[in-house]
Amino acid sequence: MKKYCFGIDVGGTTIKCGLFNTEGNVLDKWEIPTRLEANGSFILPDIAKTITEKLDERGLTKNEIEGIGLDIPGPVDEDGVCMLAVNLHWGKVNIVREMEKLTGIRTRAANDANAAALGECWKGGGAGHKNLIMVTLGTGIGGGIVVEGKVIAGAHGSGGEIGHVHVTDELSEPCNCGNVGCLEQVASATGIVRLAKMQLEKDQDTPSTLRGITGLDAKMVWDAVRNGDEVADAIAEKFGLYLGRALAGFACVTDPEIYVIGGGVSKAGPVILDYVQKYYRQYAFPGCKDAAFALATLGNDAGIYGAAKLVL
Amino acid sequence: MKKYCFGIDVGGTTIKCGLFNTEGNVLDKWEIPTRLEANGSFILPDIAKTITEKLDERGLTKNEIEGIGLDIPGPVDEDGVCMLAVNLHWGKVNIVREMEKLTGIRTRAANDANAAALGECWKGGGAGHKNLIMVTLGTGIGGGIVVEGKVIAGAHGSGGEIGHVHVTDELSEPCNCGNVGCLEQVASATGIVRLAKMQLEKDQDTPSTLRGITGLDAKMVWDAVRNGDEVADAIAEKFGLYLGRALAGFACVTDPEIYVIGGGVSKAGPVILDYVQKYYRQYAFPGCKDAAFALATLGNDAGIYGAAKLVL
Repeated sequence: MKKYCFGIDVGGTTIKCGLFNTEGNVLDKWEIPTRLEANGSFILPDIAKTITEKLDERGLTKNEIEGIGLDIPGPVDEDGVCMLAVNLHWGKVNIVREMEKLTGIRTRAANDANAAALGECWKGGGAGHKNLIMVTLGTGIGGGIVVEGKVIAGAHGSGGEIGHVHVTDELSEPCNCGNVGCLEQVASATGIVRLAKMQLEKDQDTPSTLRGITGLDAKMVWDAVRNGDEVADAIAEKFGLYLGRALAGFACVTDPEIYVIGGGVSKAGPVILDYVQKYYRQYAFPGCKDAAFALATLGNDAGIYGAAKLVL
Repeated sequence: MKKYCFGIDVGGTTIKCGLFNTEGNVLDKWEIPTRLEANGSFILPDIAKTITEKLDERGLTKNEIEGIGLDIPGPVDEDGVCMLAVNLHWGKVNIVREMEKLTGIRTRAANDANAAALGECWKGGGAGHKNLIMVTLGTGIGGGIVVEGKVIAGAHGSGGEIGHVHVTDELSEPCNCGNVGCLEQVASATGIVRLAKMQLEKDQDTPSTLRGITGLDAKMVWDAVRNGDEVADAIAEKFGLYLGRALAGFACVTDPEIYVIGGGVSKAGPVILDYVQKYYRQYAFPGCKDAAFALATLGNDAGIYGAAKLVL
């Protein structure tokens, strides 16, 4: 094992970079812009350049680098090939081969949600565990499945796409994926707003601080939950039912030790775990009922940690 | 890699034994009875004895044996420890440690459904694939999740307990696991009979060859499906919806290349795949929709194959 590695988290606007020692301590963090022009063809060369510059700046040689881990917003298969990454304007890109050619350093690549899961498992809310399911509740829902310390990419790069399990027949509008009734439609930040509108419509006679707000968002709903708002509580119950029951279903598959909840929605704090766990415990197979729940702790750094872990 | 290994499939009545070469060809198959007396404490010594006898009979030495793989009807953790196996009258048993002490041969252990999945992945309906979900439709439903050629045991030995995902709110009686509305209650052999009774009750005015039969079983339902019986078709649709939609949910987790359906119910043949795939394709995440489906091919030998594979 060499002394250092890089963890690179490629987003649609910014590329987050981390230089780590191989014990997992971050020594340096910086960002470069994501250049989307020319079908995103500058992205990997830009990363290679910033890595070379960092090596020079620190007086390090390639021989001291264990590898480069890199994650992107799109499916990546076991061999480090991306088939399509809309947010990077990429079609098929063999990330591992191209980066190794550009840098001469061993490279591994993964989906961003999968890397975040690995990061949280290594140094975040799931630290100390080897089997984990990570749920990222943002505008959409991302997920990552870690088994025996390794993230499951899946045969089609769709491992951990848990936002797209079917959870309800009550919706008619389609999910971004084209299906109808996905978890993402009722438990992401936008999904919680959808649930809120449905509940306010249904409980017309119940007073609620959420009524009549323009620009209602998920944070307002959770604030209202904490303030004892009756309609907000009903919304949180629905959210807990959909997410908790879905996780109970996943427990039958990989049976993790711990579920880690991250993403913007998780900033509402432990209250969301209460609602999710209530329904998880109701629906989980008896052997899995005592699994742990935790909030993510690495925030926006989960990606660089997980990317770094890919090469260790 | 040495030349030979043993695959041992321990059931509640019979212990199936196989001597394999390490290419995966079975050289000898035999059975011994499962002695349940004295809390099943004769089981492992009986296995050690039959292995020793087989070595003597074949003129083999322990040094030529790569290992002993052993599966049992109950949860087994990553370290080869069984916490409870009701059908063997076992409490906690450290299978690996005890067998290694008894035989001096390296041992690995797994749950029987997980071993069957590994067997089908290696030499059966899923041969040629590394990522698979196996569904065993018998009296209950067993399952096994194979990722990158390895079976997922899970943190509580409940990996692949896919019969206990919640699929319906229409039932009131509890599943054997204590929950209500499990897949096993509507898609196992007994589950299909339950669906049949519900459908016959609901479609009282539709003529059906299934009406008035005492001792109705799953095979009769599938025979009627093939004969164009309208009520039987409705039953098969329900079965397909529950199982296909559940598998679509699991696709979001490990994203397998192939689903292999085995167990007694699968003897009905390819017709069951038609109904399952119809709903799988409807509900699966787009990236996973083209996954393959196959029937299991190893029958009762899946366990010994999978057990053998544990040590290879």
